[in-house]
Amino acid sequence: MSEPTKILLEEHEIPTHWYNVVADMPNPPAPPLGPDGQPVPPEKMLAIFPGNLLEQEMSAERWIAIPGEVREAYRLWRPSPLYRAHRLEQMLGTPAKIYYKNEAISPAGSHKPNTAVPQAFFNKQAGISRLATETGAGQWGSSLAFAGQMFGVAVRVFMVKVSYDQKPFRRSMMQTWGAEVFASPSDITQAGRDALAKDPENQGSLGLAISEAVEEAASRADTNYALGSVLNHVLLHQTVIGLEAKQQLAKIGEYPDMIFAPCGGGSNFGGIVFPFLADKAAGDPKAKNLRLVAVEPMSCPSLTKGVYAYDFGDATGYTPLMKMYTLGHDFMPPGIHAGGLRYHGDSPLVSQLYHEKLIEAVAVPQLATFEAGVQFARAEGIIPAPESCHGIRACIDEAMRCKQTGEKKTLLFNLTGHGHFDMASYDRYFSGALDDYDYPREAVERSLQHLPKVG
Amino acid sequence: MSEPTKILLEEHEIPTHWYNVVADMPNPPAPPLGPDGQPVPPEKMLAIFPGNLLEQEMSAERWIAIPGEVREAYRLWRPSPLYRAHRLEQMLGTPAKIYYKNEAISPAGSHKPNTAVPQAFFNKQAGISRLATETGAGQWGSSLAFAGQMFGVAVRVFMVKVSYDQKPFRRSMMQTWGAEVFASPSDITQAGRDALAKDPENQGSLGLAISEAVEEAASRADTNYALGSVLNHVLLHQTVIGLEAKQQLAKIGEYPDMIFAPCGGGSNFGGIVFPFLADKAAGDPKAKNLRLVAVEPMSCPSLTKGVYAYDFGDATGYTPLMKMYTLGHDFMPPGIHAGGLRYHGDSPLVSQLYHEKLIEAVAVPQLATFEAGVQFARAEGIIPAPESCHGIRACIDEAMRCKQTGEKKTLLFNLTGHGHFDMASYDRYFSGALDDYDYPREAVERSLQHLPKVG
Repeated sequence: MSEPTKILLEEHEIPTHWYNVVADMPNPPAPPLGPDGQPVPPEKMLAIFPGNLLEQEMSAERWIAIPGEVREAYRLWRPSPLYRAHRLEQMLGTPAKIYYKNEAISPAGSHKPNTAVPQAFFNKQAGISRLATETGAGQWGSSLAFAGQMFGVAVRVFMVKVSYDQKPFRRSMMQTWGAEVFASPSDITQAGRDALAKDPENQGSLGLAISEAVEEAASRADTNYALGSVLNHVLLHQTVIGLEAKQQLAKIGEYPDMIFAPCGGGSNFGGIVFPFLADKAAGDPKAKNLRLVAVEPMSCPSLTKGVYAYDFGDATGYTPLMKMYTLGHDFMPPGIHAGGLRYHGDSPLVSQLYHEKLIEAVAVPQLATFEAGVQFARAEGIIPAPESCHGIRACIDEAMRCKQTGEKKTLLFNLTGHGHFDMASYDRYFSGALDDYDYPREAVERSLQHLPKVG
Repeated sequence: MSEPTKILLEEHEIPTHWYNVVADMPNPPAPPLGPDGQPVPPEKMLAIFPGNLLEQEMSAERWIAIPGEVREAYRLWRPSPLYRAHRLEQMLGTPAKIYYKNEAISPAGSHKPNTAVPQAFFNKQAGISRLATETGAGQWGSSLAFAGQMFGVAVRVFMVKVSYDQKPFRRSMMQTWGAEVFASPSDITQAGRDALAKDPENQGSLGLAISEAVEEAASRADTNYALGSVLNHVLLHQTVIGLEAKQQLAKIGEYPDMIFAPCGGGSNFGGIVFPFLADKAAGDPKAKNLRLVAVEPMSCPSLTKGVYAYDFGDATGYTPLMKMYTLGHDFMPPGIHAGGLRYHGDSPLVSQLYHEKLIEAVAVPQLATFEAGVQFARAEGIIPAPESCHGIRACIDEAMRCKQTGEKKTLLFNLTGHGHFDMASYDRYFSGALDDYDYPREAVERSLQHLPKVG
């Protein structure tokens, strides 16, 4: 046999610290602002987040220790394997070497448990006995349900009603892990009751589900709120992906020329690329020409088409203002199947790094992502989630450029999750029922007129 | 950190040979018989199976080499990890040590690709360009679709119509891997057309789907048939499971006292236990008291309640007669959710070993298996397939006996697959809609009256 297909690490090689990219950024991160235009004092956030996570959120320390209990829980699926895509390379006939980090092997089937587990742990440590969160299709809700179960923290998930009704399988998954799942709007919060009073047939929205979860967290001393992307501490936890990938590539004497990852809220992208940015910051010669590419949907292209400005993190304007690339908080993206990438903005850390030209971004259309996903599944066996198909698309495009130029680049992408709960999307792709959305210029221009005024 | 959670092997440790239990059986296997009561000559089977697989089917050689191309394809997911169920042990409060072999990590999500891959390879080698098979819920069909794609063999799957309509996700999975999927009865075979002529609303059955697949294979020179369980060569291929598990346990100085595996057609059970039977046969002292337990559903208890007799392998009587534990070929098991265990008989090899008291069997009721599956998911994260829940149930029962007696037994079970495509079953379990079938004594007694006369 030739070079291995999977590069494995032992459990004792699970990173002992998360990497905080803030320590290596050319400028300090722009702070979140309150409605008065002044930085939000951390104590205001204590109603819904524990102090230990807020400390991580504000930290500029380069390395933050991973508690033993979290590393212990990570062992259920980590370190995740790094794959060499021998068969995909052959199928493409490319001289490029393609590697992928397989985060699909977690119990919930994506990278989300990397942060759900420490969030449950730190809340438990802070004396919190219950977490509330929102979920759309269910990727994040199921990850938090799993994580809560690991540490005996109850989990209450507000699931957008239309998904609750149409996608019962992620709901059953959350229940299997012991979470309570409510169709949102629900009758257990004021926000939900108000919505139902206006319209008993309300099908829900992510914005409304956030309101319900935040209300639960703010109104009960034993309950906190948990978010699956965007925030600094979430991206911090995800750096286990890149830290492991660096170890794995080093074992076989490799270093990437380019890294690709899908980018919605920014957590899996930050998770795989930040530890490589550290090499750039340290002036490591092998990272000199390294390119880091965020891949977003053409229908929701916050980095490539948005503006860099202060905007709300949610659709309805409950959150503090965050400086980020945004399409406008009330921009409603087309109904693409990569639900995890349908976010109007982007993580403030990713946004600032993009603004400072330390990372790149590219937008790809929906049909081309499914085409790449099917090609990948036929070569490598694993059926990728629609979100993951975005990173695969961009990586295949680069591999095909290498075929033309003859370059033997080393490419790495983040396989963020499997598509086992997304087969209806593949079904629609095969039957020709999927739309291939263009950039929705007019809708974006409209919503950008509603950006909040700052200061 | 304490003892590891996952015991891993490197790719070069993938077994180089499959283990053939026939070499170590006290008596030669009872041969399949034709309608005349005489052993079926192998050349009669050449219409639907390639010579190289038939050779394996009849072989008494102890070790059969795994071709390099098959080991290469195995590397996409093998060696599979062996897990120590630390959290399940803690949850149960048992002094027993619990290990499980995780076959859920294959691309198709179960142990089935272990044989689908070599079957596709050997057929390709024999000049066959297409395989036909039947599938119920889709576990086997999707595994063969994946395997066919690996070696450029086209795959045509006849999927029972009621599943084709109600369970579209496994169908989409097969299409993602490039297979053609037909609702059975279809209009591309005579058997299908006849059935549709009688009843255009025919919802299909596994027996009818087998007829369609076998007709395709028998009537086209370029097409063969592939079966996912029961036959000797299928069980042979599955021994990679047990061979790896032995290596993994040896690495940490362990040897099991008991092994549990679900048993329907017998392939995953044979796959994990046969290599340990080899130790018994060789008089290895550490295997002296080893107990090997096949776990079957109370509603379809072929080993524990059936008779040991010659019977047809299929419901309609197309196949040769095989000597096996059977409930009667026309026994229709209740609609339990572990579809893979709804088989009226059992593999001839497993049956003979049971008859000779080298292995044991136990039957468990449906609700108790889901209870065990949920307990396992909450402790270990992985949501098991309903079939796998049977092995988990019996293993937990033994662990609880150990709690009472204080015995520190080492227990091993085969986690045959994940439940991502079975969440509707979990949903029904949580909502109280699942039945807990008793042993269907009267139905079995009726069907046993229809056993074929031999000789």
